[in-house]
Amino acid sequence: MRIAVVGAGAVGQAVVELAEPYGHTVTAVADSSAGVVDADGLDAEAVLDRKRTEGTVGPQTLDAVLDSEYDALVEATPTTVGDAQPAFEHVRTALGRDRDVVLANKGPVAQRYDDVRGMERDSDGAVRFEATVGGAIPVFSTIEDIGAENVTAVRGVLNGTANFILSRMTAEGVAYEHALAEAQDIGVAEADPTFDVDGTDAALKCAILANVLTDTTYTLDAVEMMGIRDIPASALELAQQGGSTIRLIGEVDESGVRVRPRLVDEHGTLAVSGTQNIVQVETTHAGRVNISGRGAGGHETATAIMSDLRQLEY
Amino acid sequence: MRIAVVGAGAVGQAVVELAEPYGHTVTAVADSSAGVVDADGLDAEAVLDRKRTEGTVGPQTLDAVLDSEYDALVEATPTTVGDAQPAFEHVRTALGRDRDVVLANKGPVAQRYDDVRGMERDSDGAVRFEATVGGAIPVFSTIEDIGAENVTAVRGVLNGTANFILSRMTAEGVAYEHALAEAQDIGVAEADPTFDVDGTDAALKCAILANVLTDTTYTLDAVEMMGIRDIPASALELAQQGGSTIRLIGEVDESGVRVRPRLVDEHGTLAVSGTQNIVQVETTHAGRVNISGRGAGGHETATAIMSDLRQLEY
Repeated sequence: MRIAVVGAGAVGQAVVELAEPYGHTVTAVADSSAGVVDADGLDAEAVLDRKRTEGTVGPQTLDAVLDSEYDALVEATPTTVGDAQPAFEHVRTALGRDRDVVLANKGPVAQRYDDVRGMERDSDGAVRFEATVGGAIPVFSTIEDIGAENVTAVRGVLNGTANFILSRMTAEGVAYEHALAEAQDIGVAEADPTFDVDGTDAALKCAILANVLTDTTYTLDAVEMMGIRDIPASALELAQQGGSTIRLIGEVDESGVRVRPRLVDEHGTLAVSGTQNIVQVETTHAGRVNISGRGAGGHETATAIMSDLRQLEY
Repeated sequence: MRIAVVGAGAVGQAVVELAEPYGHTVTAVADSSAGVVDADGLDAEAVLDRKRTEGTVGPQTLDAVLDSEYDALVEATPTTVGDAQPAFEHVRTALGRDRDVVLANKGPVAQRYDDVRGMERDSDGAVRFEATVGGAIPVFSTIEDIGAENVTAVRGVLNGTANFILSRMTAEGVAYEHALAEAQDIGVAEADPTFDVDGTDAALKCAILANVLTDTTYTLDAVEMMGIRDIPASALELAQQGGSTIRLIGEVDESGVRVRPRLVDEHGTLAVSGTQNIVQVETTHAGRVNISGRGAGGHETATAIMSDLRQLEY
């Protein structure tokens, strides 16, 4: 497929890099300040090189990218809450032109799911968003396989940064601030870790899962949310004495949608370590299916985008 | 879809039961001695009831079932090795009539993969076989998602019976014979457990995985195989002292295809307990993806068949 990539951070860059080996042609790329378009296909290496050395992908504009010829728009700008702009507008533009959309940005499907599905119904294009939850883990593809109507609940560790901090607090017996600083040092946590440690990122993912699984439209406001900032090292120590540990668990079930620290069996399936993610899907006829793997990272997330592109090709 | 089900054991019966709630119509069913056909759709409950009370599904023949009008043939007869008959002939008949085929029977894709793919190329029908490996776990769908060309290795616990026996030997410190007898008592192991405990069942599954992942055609003979019969309780005890346990692991990687007992971390991802299965998929760009769940059971296997039918509908 000919793809236009909007957003040139870690995920956008990995999409540009992997597109060709996966059989696609990148015809346009935009970052936050500029764009580059070539209907015959861009030279991925040249674009990435320019981004690295000059800080921008090219001499054109975002509008030129959005107006260019492509089959699928990959939306990989940073997630915003509220009205999910400007990502929502990018989705609207692409669907309005009957093009497909693949989201890495969580905003549009977490905050304006109904609007997105409505625009999709009026378009010949389709919207997919495997990359929004669980990084490399095929969460939505598995739910599609099982059939959303046969899924009774989903829960899991959906934020790798929070999980890394909890894992380090447990392994080293250190305080939250210490583990956070370590995570920031090695690039697992951002300078402003609020979204990850307060549960917002996991809550956005839960809202998306709830939107796929239920008939109600959820947004961040509808998710019960508690983060990991206030967990003392002593709580993890106590948990460990009882054969348990603490993980930040997101859950969607018949009683609601929530993200909160929970006691889990220290050797149990939910107690993944480091930046791993895990999703448990409860089904009507086949019990529980567990899927775990790398929950973040440019290449990992880009592979989920490649899966979506593959599905759109059929 | 209109489906014809050949084989009326636990899996075939579960397919007949689940078809309607999943939006399909069962138009024909055959067991080992008889068949029943109704182009307008059979009454699932009546068929299952007759099977239970009279031991047969109906008054017609297998040929009548194979000749009937259907969109997809579900092959759920017991797996045979060697020439994979009679399942292979059922596949040939259906593809010859340009119908789709969904396999629960491992034989045709484990023993005659090339032949099956060749017949598929000459047909308007397609062959899918999610149910042949890992029961309810979406193994092939995940590999399809990732792209077989991006998968470098697959390994896992692929036989629930052997895993149950090893789990019980570990938990209770009992000998193989004792754990086997317990498994037979509760219906987890068959009266003749050879296929499960000698590794044949897992090896057939590995052959199928290897066929999907490589360009070479594998059969059972090409799989290096060692079972669990000769593992003494003392080996499990020794393993446990070192923080490990023993699992029967099937592997497909660049160095070959094999099934053998292996030491694994006792709390590690591969050490699933009871009849659970787990599959680890190693990928080029996204690290390892783990999928675990119920590896056997009529309903569990039938849900994998329902996933295949859903894919065929697109």
